[in-house]
Amino acid sequence: MDFFKAVSVEDGQSAIASRLKGYALESEEVGISECRGRILSEDVVSRENIPGFNRSTVDGYAVDSRDSHGASSTIPSMLMLVEEVEMGSAPSKAISRGQTSYVPTGGMIPEGADSVVMIENAEKLDEENIMVYKAVSKGQNVILKGDDIREGEVVLPKGKRLTSHDIGVLATQGISKVKVHRKLRISIISTGDEIVDIDEPFETGKIRDINGYVLASRVEELGGEVERKVIVKDEFELLKREVAESLANSDIAIISGGSSVGAKDYTHDVINSFGGEGVFIHGVAVKPGKPTIVGMAGDKMVFGLPGHPSSSILLFNIFVKEAMNQINGTIEKEKSAYCVMDSNFPSSSGKRTYQMVSVYEENGELRAAPVFGKSGMITLLSKSDGYIEIEPHEEGVYSGDRRKVKYF
Amino acid sequence: MDFFKAVSVEDGQSAIASRLKGYALESEEVGISECRGRILSEDVVSRENIPGFNRSTVDGYAVDSRDSHGASSTIPSMLMLVEEVEMGSAPSKAISRGQTSYVPTGGMIPEGADSVVMIENAEKLDEENIMVYKAVSKGQNVILKGDDIREGEVVLPKGKRLTSHDIGVLATQGISKVKVHRKLRISIISTGDEIVDIDEPFETGKIRDINGYVLASRVEELGGEVERKVIVKDEFELLKREVAESLANSDIAIISGGSSVGAKDYTHDVINSFGGEGVFIHGVAVKPGKPTIVGMAGDKMVFGLPGHPSSSILLFNIFVKEAMNQINGTIEKEKSAYCVMDSNFPSSSGKRTYQMVSVYEENGELRAAPVFGKSGMITLLSKSDGYIEIEPHEEGVYSGDRRKVKYF
Repeated sequence: MDFFKAVSVEDGQSAIASRLKGYALESEEVGISECRGRILSEDVVSRENIPGFNRSTVDGYAVDSRDSHGASSTIPSMLMLVEEVEMGSAPSKAISRGQTSYVPTGGMIPEGADSVVMIENAEKLDEENIMVYKAVSKGQNVILKGDDIREGEVVLPKGKRLTSHDIGVLATQGISKVKVHRKLRISIISTGDEIVDIDEPFETGKIRDINGYVLASRVEELGGEVERKVIVKDEFELLKREVAESLANSDIAIISGGSSVGAKDYTHDVINSFGGEGVFIHGVAVKPGKPTIVGMAGDKMVFGLPGHPSSSILLFNIFVKEAMNQINGTIEKEKSAYCVMDSNFPSSSGKRTYQMVSVYEENGELRAAPVFGKSGMITLLSKSDGYIEIEPHEEGVYSGDRRKVKYF
Repeated sequence: MDFFKAVSVEDGQSAIASRLKGYALESEEVGISECRGRILSEDVVSRENIPGFNRSTVDGYAVDSRDSHGASSTIPSMLMLVEEVEMGSAPSKAISRGQTSYVPTGGMIPEGADSVVMIENAEKLDEENIMVYKAVSKGQNVILKGDDIREGEVVLPKGKRLTSHDIGVLATQGISKVKVHRKLRISIISTGDEIVDIDEPFETGKIRDINGYVLASRVEELGGEVERKVIVKDEFELLKREVAESLANSDIAIISGGSSVGAKDYTHDVINSFGGEGVFIHGVAVKPGKPTIVGMAGDKMVFGLPGHPSSSILLFNIFVKEAMNQINGTIEKEKSAYCVMDSNFPSSSGKRTYQMVSVYEENGELRAAPVFGKSGMITLLSKSDGYIEIEPHEEGVYSGDRRKVKYF
């Protein structure tokens, strides 16, 4: 077994990113109704101005704003009505000074008008005469052509994970299909003589496969696809065969478990047996989750994650998510909040500690309570809203400290 | 047309909730790999203790902690090795004082042991004798039976929207299927003579159907199912027919658009034409989005949302999401953060203003910048990370204020 130094999270992430820079991922076209959560493989450039015409934001009378100046309820301006523009139709006439056309909300304002007087501030005397009781300024109650989106503008950048709001942007442009990266295919291998699948017979000393299900769900949550999900005994040949089969069709393989000394060696040796660079990260200076291995098996990346569920998910979030984002070029803002810590708690010096927390509101501020438990506990995760990072040089956190919580 | 007073958001929400209290939603069983995002229709009660046995968290020697007391690198304790417990198997022997058994990480510790000495702090002299160089306290390096989850405990409550972490809790328990509410079926009707679908021919004065796509995506995001999605012209009979067809198979119908005066009347009259209570909310004191109608058409709830995309989504989040959560009994924590406002901006007095913001980090604090634009702008939404609520009695927000941002 080679000897490696535990790397920091940042060094590990950049080692992973640098090896995946050239990884080419094909694109595919998906319909606008199916694209939520997918990642754009090219910029979306607007094809037209939005709105495509000067549009009223109210029901009212389109005017040259100068004609309304000085108008009040006692001294109204009198304008001549030339048209009632219908919803969904273009006006047939331009207006001149002293004229007006009725326009409904969302309707197109005629040439010559630069603003709209709300219907509440006007009165129709007869078929031809409108009294305006309130002045409007230029541009008032109007969205100008291109105000929202300008033709040729990048409206959604490559790498954006599409949200329902982005789907609105696509719909505005009449874009019914977009190019996104195909889903990353990921295999998940749970190792350990003690691991049984959830519907297999269970006996004392065994542990059910938790990581397989949690990791699969996370992969899907991040827009990936679970290619294979298997459980394998702690044996070199068996593990090697599963990794080989996984890599044949997957972009990434995750081996979870094997936290015993012997199993760690297998994972390491199996990764190295495929040629290529082999293991380049062996141990990470983080708590929980030190026994983590990352390597290149041929041209594919393989992750060996710890067996404890909370460690396993944590390292997944730190490293596998990073790899997925690197390949996809994902642009994403994390949701976070600065919270007041509600108690003292220690950390491990020399390692970055990820402390799970539960967030609650009290007296108009967000507070965070540590969720404690040994790292084998699955409830650690389900009771937490997020985590804080405590740096290696710190000794812990004090009650009253304001720390950044990253939401799950 | 009846006259209604604009209601506050809270009054509107409780009027909606009270009318949906008895709404019965069937359950269905789904597999653990498909249940993410679904809502539990009954409590999940643990069937067994987790762990099911006293388990080691390290590779090492299981001992009665008293036998290690006083042990140090200069004066080790000498113990007799009685067994090497295999991973996934129960120990075959108990240990007595002066004895020890080797246990791998995750392995079961034998009767008589209460702690585990890490392998790094011990040495195997020969097949029978182990030197222990460091004392352990009772319970050290051990997760006791039931420490994580106790048999009979509610591990996931009814109403919980299942996350990948919750899936881990289910897997631990060997639960391969869970009872969840069937997906809420929702129909979305976009109204307006000017509305065309995204792949229809487009001409000046028309507007593409944005809300239909955005709302559909939001419905799915919240775990619902889009039963129908149609565009209908502003005509009483046409709208009535679409609502009738929608309600035949849907739990909820949403009518979006029709923000012109005439269309508002249609929506109101159509809802009232089905019998039952009819419209009970007509106007909400919020900005943007006042022209909102909610009513009971027979025993089904119908929402009339504003036509402007950002108003429409806002009112969806305030009211339709509330209705979905009420029917599902959803328990959910919102993600939020207190942020420092980076500029002054006004609000509408007498109404609760929802101001979209973009969140960024600067000098170790989260700051929020208002995203401005008229409410017809779709980019308002896609450029925002969340929103703040400005109460009716406030005049606006000042730069430097610390306000709560609710993330989308």
